[in-house]
Amino acid sequence: MPDLNKPVAKAAVIGLGSMGYGMAVSLVRAGFEVAGYDVRPEITVRFAAERGAGTVTRAASAAEAAANAEIIIVVVVNADQTSAVLLGEGGALHAARPGAVVVSCATMAPERSRALAREVAAHGLLFLDAPISGGAVKAREGALTVLASGPEAAFAKAAPALDAMAATLYRLGDEPGTGSSFKIVNQLLAGVHIAAACEAIALAKRLGLDLAKVYEVIKSSAGNSWMFENRVPHILEGDYTPRSAVSIFTKDLGIVADISRAENFPVPVSSAALQLFLMTAAAGMGRDDDASVVRLFARIAGLDLPEQKA
Amino acid sequence: MPDLNKPVAKAAVIGLGSMGYGMAVSLVRAGFEVAGYDVRPEITVRFAAERGAGTVTRAASAAEAAANAEIIIVVVVNADQTSAVLLGEGGALHAARPGAVVVSCATMAPERSRALAREVAAHGLLFLDAPISGGAVKAREGALTVLASGPEAAFAKAAPALDAMAATLYRLGDEPGTGSSFKIVNQLLAGVHIAAACEAIALAKRLGLDLAKVYEVIKSSAGNSWMFENRVPHILEGDYTPRSAVSIFTKDLGIVADISRAENFPVPVSSAALQLFLMTAAAGMGRDDDASVVRLFARIAGLDLPEQKA
Repeated sequence: MPDLNKPVAKAAVIGLGSMGYGMAVSLVRAGFEVAGYDVRPEITVRFAAERGAGTVTRAASAAEAAANAEIIIVVVVNADQTSAVLLGEGGALHAARPGAVVVSCATMAPERSRALAREVAAHGLLFLDAPISGGAVKAREGALTVLASGPEAAFAKAAPALDAMAATLYRLGDEPGTGSSFKIVNQLLAGVHIAAACEAIALAKRLGLDLAKVYEVIKSSAGNSWMFENRVPHILEGDYTPRSAVSIFTKDLGIVADISRAENFPVPVSSAALQLFLMTAAAGMGRDDDASVVRLFARIAGLDLPEQKA
Repeated sequence: MPDLNKPVAKAAVIGLGSMGYGMAVSLVRAGFEVAGYDVRPEITVRFAAERGAGTVTRAASAAEAAANAEIIIVVVVNADQTSAVLLGEGGALHAARPGAVVVSCATMAPERSRALAREVAAHGLLFLDAPISGGAVKAREGALTVLASGPEAAFAKAAPALDAMAATLYRLGDEPGTGSSFKIVNQLLAGVHIAAACEAIALAKRLGLDLAKVYEVIKSSAGNSWMFENRVPHILEGDYTPRSAVSIFTKDLGIVADISRAENFPVPVSSAALQLFLMTAAAGMGRDDDASVVRLFARIAGLDLPEQKA
């Protein structure tokens, strides 16, 4: 319940996809006055219409959204987009007030996060490297996991918004880049586990096994993973509505590939997983649920996977 | 507590490695009279000495172990060894009583299991395709998971031993081969997840992250797997004493590779994992704990992993 005697805290949410939209909802619920912006005008309109002008403002640019905000949350797709909405034409840093904090939530290479931190500092603002995990439902519930690093002052300034958006906040050190590194390690594993789940389910189908039984058995066995447990039901239901899309993993395993090549470091298992996501995207399923990797196997090998009930 | 008025049930355990030995202990605890045999004489001697002659007999051959048993449990490394101890010189089927049941626990290709079932049937015995999961500690506690398939009569005959050895028995159908197929799907995932855990931890080290913190964060995130949670502590403790060896996964992912090639079915992610296990074995760590894949990365890239405390 917002304290009505307290001055209303002001936040900007830049990027109103399913994650950013949910986070803005969580901030409004916690009593924030939220200015929302998305490069896609239709999304900003939907956001303004759903939330009402009393608590949320539709901004015409990232700069306008950020102009009065103490906390500027950037939750776009990648480092390039983050850079564009901060530094590009109409970017937030052209209007943001010194002393405000930029909370950077996109998954990106740690070096990109460190470079952004320097740019933000040059404008007199604080920067928190704060990639998120949990999906759209948890974003809306204020129950995200945030993997954050940055100076104490940035954590302190961002604290009310982090409280509103996250169930779990990991404080991973003083240096921007560390939060991004943790996120990348998580995405490496998450991507491999989805690809492996699809490979295993496809092989099980080829071997003639009952897939519902496979799910039941593996879920209770040493072969289980968080992703196996979460994604295989999409396959059993034949439902490839994107909860998280194939394109997220071509992007995130692409970052793993970029980082590891820059470090001269081999990553053979995640490279194989990346290729499967790329094949799935190449086959026209880039915007479908990431469990669509199993449909790639099915198309290649002529498997009859479960179909969605009408 | 064994019922002293009941006739003592007789079982043979062929293969007294850490799994078979634990299973024999569980059978003895449940009141079975157990005849144990291993091709390695020193292991059979140790088994007899530890258990005492009242409940266990040291057998000089698989045939001798099986001669009086109603339930013949074969828990050797692979299909070839299973075939040898059943059908080879001194093999169990030369002496076993018609109507007894062979419980085949080694991980193998489903087709090999079906072929063994035919041989066993030709000798007038029942056959249960019953690969196991859970490790040596659970074997000794009678808390294994058994992935079994076979005719009702084989399940019924083997039931008292399965009760003694397993916490979870999956009944996966009437046909031998199905249990093996489920086990192979589990091993595909288990092997990939170990290799991915090692790749992720190695990359995290290269990126300068605190590995204990990585373990804590991933364990609570979408990148978690049963294997990540179970094996990464070995890395954090620098302890590569084999709980399960690299050679188990060169074998089991080798079976995945064989089956999938025979089926003309691509398995790119598990193929990459197999190559990592093979590299680790080639580097002299085949008998070490399967988390040694991380030491392969460390050797290649000059990483300082945690070392075991003296």
